[in-house]
Amino acid sequence: MSIVVVGSVAYDTVETPREKRERQLGGSASFFSIATLGRSTVRCVGVVGDDFLQDDLDLLAAHGADVSGIKRVAGKSFHWSGRYHDDMIERDTLATELGVFADFQPEIPADWKTSEYLFLANIHPSLQSHVLDEMHEPRLVALDTMNLWIETTPDELKAILARVDVLLVNDSEARLLTGKRSLAHAAAAIREMGPQRVIVKKGEHGALYFGADSVLAVPAIILDDVIDPTGAGDCFAGGFMGSLAKAGADRTSGDEVFRQAMLDGTVTASFCPEGFNVEGLLKIDEAAYEARMATLKSMMVP
Amino acid sequence: MSIVVVGSVAYDTVETPREKRERQLGGSASFFSIATLGRSTVRCVGVVGDDFLQDDLDLLAAHGADVSGIKRVAGKSFHWSGRYHDDMIERDTLATELGVFADFQPEIPADWKTSEYLFLANIHPSLQSHVLDEMHEPRLVALDTMNLWIETTPDELKAILARVDVLLVNDSEARLLTGKRSLAHAAAAIREMGPQRVIVKKGEHGALYFGADSVLAVPAIILDDVIDPTGAGDCFAGGFMGSLAKAGADRTSGDEVFRQAMLDGTVTASFCPEGFNVEGLLKIDEAAYEARMATLKSMMVP
Repeated sequence: MSIVVVGSVAYDTVETPREKRERQLGGSASFFSIATLGRSTVRCVGVVGDDFLQDDLDLLAAHGADVSGIKRVAGKSFHWSGRYHDDMIERDTLATELGVFADFQPEIPADWKTSEYLFLANIHPSLQSHVLDEMHEPRLVALDTMNLWIETTPDELKAILARVDVLLVNDSEARLLTGKRSLAHAAAAIREMGPQRVIVKKGEHGALYFGADSVLAVPAIILDDVIDPTGAGDCFAGGFMGSLAKAGADRTSGDEVFRQAMLDGTVTASFCPEGFNVEGLLKIDEAAYEARMATLKSMMVP
Repeated sequence: MSIVVVGSVAYDTVETPREKRERQLGGSASFFSIATLGRSTVRCVGVVGDDFLQDDLDLLAAHGADVSGIKRVAGKSFHWSGRYHDDMIERDTLATELGVFADFQPEIPADWKTSEYLFLANIHPSLQSHVLDEMHEPRLVALDTMNLWIETTPDELKAILARVDVLLVNDSEARLLTGKRSLAHAAAAIREMGPQRVIVKKGEHGALYFGADSVLAVPAIILDDVIDPTGAGDCFAGGFMGSLAKAGADRTSGDEVFRQAMLDGTVTASFCPEGFNVEGLLKIDEAAYEARMATLKSMMVP
């Protein structure tokens, strides 16, 4: 089984009340890829500039990502800069320098088009549609988006939503997309738009899964310390999709395999805020993962 | 088994984006009492003014509350007035007219002092201490408080906290009380202060239970419509304490009975926002309750 992920491969400058780190490996495709934890081959489609360090591509490759779909072109890599507030949740974006990402035209290598799984990370919905056009009937397509596209390109977003199986959004985006305050109504409205499985991410409050026949509420694992939450949503997606790919799920699978994927996404994402950028993810080993899965389940059993 | 509750019996004027309701039955002791759902005798200690309607006391009595501990004195009843924002979570307090509540000196009827359970709703911590002094070794004492007392009477609050078994607070109060951002650290710090069981209420995100040997995360039930969330926290407390009293729990009981009480508190509180003030609670019947309990459990099973 293999997953194609299309998204950003970037540098992030992150400032927290305690520390500032400049130009570290970031971007949705980077977090996603590492977060699949080797459960599936991950094929990254993205673009970087000539300032991008080979070491960073090597790091992704060392964690199982095929980076041959990341094109290197003349110019600067996508650079995001932000500052977290004391609560380590609210943040101000200080700079978004798109660089070569501004003209990103995703190209799927020919032998990747038959990949079984596709994750369309948060990019312009027309590009998401273009990528899906290129693929040969993946068995499951998941999509992330954001308020920018909901507000500025609603028609393009609705066009791609009609063609995907799973939507991952946060609670405010679900409400913005549907105009519904109740998340039950918002999820129902999203299912009308296309995706039959809706995941509402709520950060430190966990995530909700609205599936074919059931709703699941997964709490976030309670962390001792939050160093840098950047990328946690993409880590959730990577853990989630890796779990589905390993299980061989498709769009007709029952809710059970998706519920397990919610747990895997949650456990994987819980490591992310424990280090700057991808450092938290890199600390995952099997024992730590299993211990945290046991903790999560013990928090949930009614 | 019986529960003594000491708190406010009040009138609330509530304005939402859709409707305004004036001077309806409210107050922590009122919500709490009805929310025990007849699982235990509830003995209310409070004060009202000469403007308080006998019909409202009769309503409490009709729902199993012994209201003979609610003293009627000359003056105006406690009146709170607030306006909810569009999100039906944020609210502005427009007026807090303490009236006769300003000089409230709780008096516990002699034959109530041997009650097994005590719920100290959100009043001045010195009054909470006074009430506990009057009681004859209840088997379980739970306490609610708020940012006002944390900020203005920290010593008095810490004195009573050292003597109670269960603290119910919301997440921002837990952080304010302890100075800890991580709820794991906040709960540990609170346990150092006295209460061995800590419940962190998070509104639409559910509630966390930090117990002797386990942590439980209970999601909130996802509602189709929120009419008025006023009092939901007190409803949670009533459902929680009623469940414990019915089970005969005491401070040495294992976590299991407290985990069940968390579910009962959550299910009970879920009805509250579905009507103005106590109207949502009044719609509870056994079938509706059991259906919602099944929904909650199905949302939690990992």
